[in-house]
Amino acid sequence: MKRRQFLKGAGAASVAAGAMVSSTAQAAPEYKWKMVTTWPKNFPGLGTGANYLAKLIGEMTGGRIQVKVYGAKELVGALEIFDAVSRGTAELGHGAAYYWKGKSRAAQFFTSVPFGLTAQEMNSWLYHGGGMELWEEVYEPFGLVPGAAGNTGVQMGGWFNKEINTVSDLEGLKMRMPGLGGEVLKRAGGTPVLLPGGEIFPSLQSGAIDATEWVGPYNDLAFGLYKAAKYYYYPGWHEPGSTMECFINKEALEALPEDLQVLVRTAIRVANQDMLADFTAKNNRALEQLVNDHGVELRKFPDDVLNKIKALSDEVVAEEASKDEITKKVFDSFVKFRDQATKWHQVSEQAYLNARNPLA
Amino acid sequence: MKRRQFLKGAGAASVAAGAMVSSTAQAAPEYKWKMVTTWPKNFPGLGTGANYLAKLIGEMTGGRIQVKVYGAKELVGALEIFDAVSRGTAELGHGAAYYWKGKSRAAQFFTSVPFGLTAQEMNSWLYHGGGMELWEEVYEPFGLVPGAAGNTGVQMGGWFNKEINTVSDLEGLKMRMPGLGGEVLKRAGGTPVLLPGGEIFPSLQSGAIDATEWVGPYNDLAFGLYKAAKYYYYPGWHEPGSTMECFINKEALEALPEDLQVLVRTAIRVANQDMLADFTAKNNRALEQLVNDHGVELRKFPDDVLNKIKALSDEVVAEEASKDEITKKVFDSFVKFRDQATKWHQVSEQAYLNARNPLA
Repeated sequence: MKRRQFLKGAGAASVAAGAMVSSTAQAAPEYKWKMVTTWPKNFPGLGTGANYLAKLIGEMTGGRIQVKVYGAKELVGALEIFDAVSRGTAELGHGAAYYWKGKSRAAQFFTSVPFGLTAQEMNSWLYHGGGMELWEEVYEPFGLVPGAAGNTGVQMGGWFNKEINTVSDLEGLKMRMPGLGGEVLKRAGGTPVLLPGGEIFPSLQSGAIDATEWVGPYNDLAFGLYKAAKYYYYPGWHEPGSTMECFINKEALEALPEDLQVLVRTAIRVANQDMLADFTAKNNRALEQLVNDHGVELRKFPDDVLNKIKALSDEVVAEEASKDEITKKVFDSFVKFRDQATKWHQVSEQAYLNARNPLA
Repeated sequence: MKRRQFLKGAGAASVAAGAMVSSTAQAAPEYKWKMVTTWPKNFPGLGTGANYLAKLIGEMTGGRIQVKVYGAKELVGALEIFDAVSRGTAELGHGAAYYWKGKSRAAQFFTSVPFGLTAQEMNSWLYHGGGMELWEEVYEPFGLVPGAAGNTGVQMGGWFNKEINTVSDLEGLKMRMPGLGGEVLKRAGGTPVLLPGGEIFPSLQSGAIDATEWVGPYNDLAFGLYKAAKYYYYPGWHEPGSTMECFINKEALEALPEDLQVLVRTAIRVANQDMLADFTAKNNRALEQLVNDHGVELRKFPDDVLNKIKALSDEVVAEEASKDEITKKVFDSFVKFRDQATKWHQVSEQAYLNARNPLA
């Protein structure tokens, strides 16, 4: 029964740890693999997504591969997992590609860039638009094989204590916002601040920062951010569909019998879809709680602000892409796909959502 | 190399039939399964999606299960596959649940209903919102285990030879539109006509029908519908994210060793995601061709028309749901999920798409 529940996506959390391996495999595992992650152990959505994938690999291989998940700092630090898997300290790494822009700027496109692709578009670009081949090319020099292993969907724009009515309201604003989004904020006059997840709430509460983005209703509710800010702005232009990743040490993968190689790769694809489905359902419920139980005020960034930020985003992303050849190659593929998808989704997803829920 | 291409989703079409089985399995298959489908053999997107799933099952099981795909009428007729798999003539069936409304009205909710869920929402409802459990309950009496095996994304509204400016333009309009969408059209004053795919083009060209819906740019281009109609309307309010299905004969599934049961179920999940990614990429390109090469005129249904149709849709769907207990149970779950998802997507997917591509 547990297996059935599990496969229906009832979620990692509801399956007792290890139960699956012991129930499917009579023999000891042939391969004991380690998965290092950038997430605190069991972190909602992301860490639980890593757990789900690890269990799924055990399940699909009938226990022949057993994967033990390590939260950030349990085996190596959060931002050390790329090197750790590259050198074979662990066989699998679960994180997000934009953390590795120091290794290759191009990596950022495989998570999300400001005004980039939605989750559905990312999957289409990766699986049927040449994206995966490019991602493999980018990770190849590091002895890593990448895989898309989840998606948050469109994120939220962030928590603010004042209204954002014009771009000038961003001037001097100290906001936690990493990466290319932070660079866009800077060009709009703001001051991007880098803070790890755990420091966001106290910094916002003490006034050390004026505003912050995080993920979406599900994660933001868990962090209690509504207690320290009045307005919850949308949409999350800086991360419109962040793809999570599971990369594999190439030698370890190739040392597996061919059928197990196939299963590890397909398990990652199942996890990719499952995380988005999980986030969508949990964000639905968390948004309701934030608004109904905690009185959070939702605010849309004004159109003028979004237009200005979009122009700055396109500028920042294109500049970043011009800095080296492989990043330019990835950018060209990404932008071509985005332009086509924007046109198709104008008459499909976008038009339908607007028809179902006409905005005032 | 083929395997790698295959797993990256390069698609069923590029993999030579049977190549995968012979390259992975030394031994003869332990299980030779048949998959009957409602699609003409190799039908773009849908038939090729069935082929992809069959190959994936072979691939993931190292050839222990070999699945032979039958197009419509090759083994049984398109609309006979439900009964054929129910009685064990074939182990797998690939179709769309709304074809089986004669077996259970509730089945329609597992494909798509007018003004229902998008692809992302369907997956979330099915995997994390209780939808799969309900689908299993609906198919249980027929000895079938359902699985979501693909999605078209939001479809197009259809091909017309006159402009639709008000609801009264629908009066007397003979339009090919099956199912609940057809019932909505009827209440709006139109005349829904049932036609199999192959008869759509000649009927539109001869004037036997005034208008038709089909799927989306990719399939509509292949059918040449642009040659017989002037305007291509959007959005496809009647099918906003149609889920395809692969159902399994329950006895056959349960006769498999547990590890193979897991693999069949997970293969279906991979195919589910892959078809949407495939459709998205191919619709992108086909829309460009329709507009640039064939001069097709895109038209959005006016807001007034969409509002009226939405009210009629809600009426039709609720009436349908009130006819029996299990359909009511599925409807209640579906509508509750849709209402939550509409609110969440208002501040995420919808707001983001509108920010990236502001409509005039």
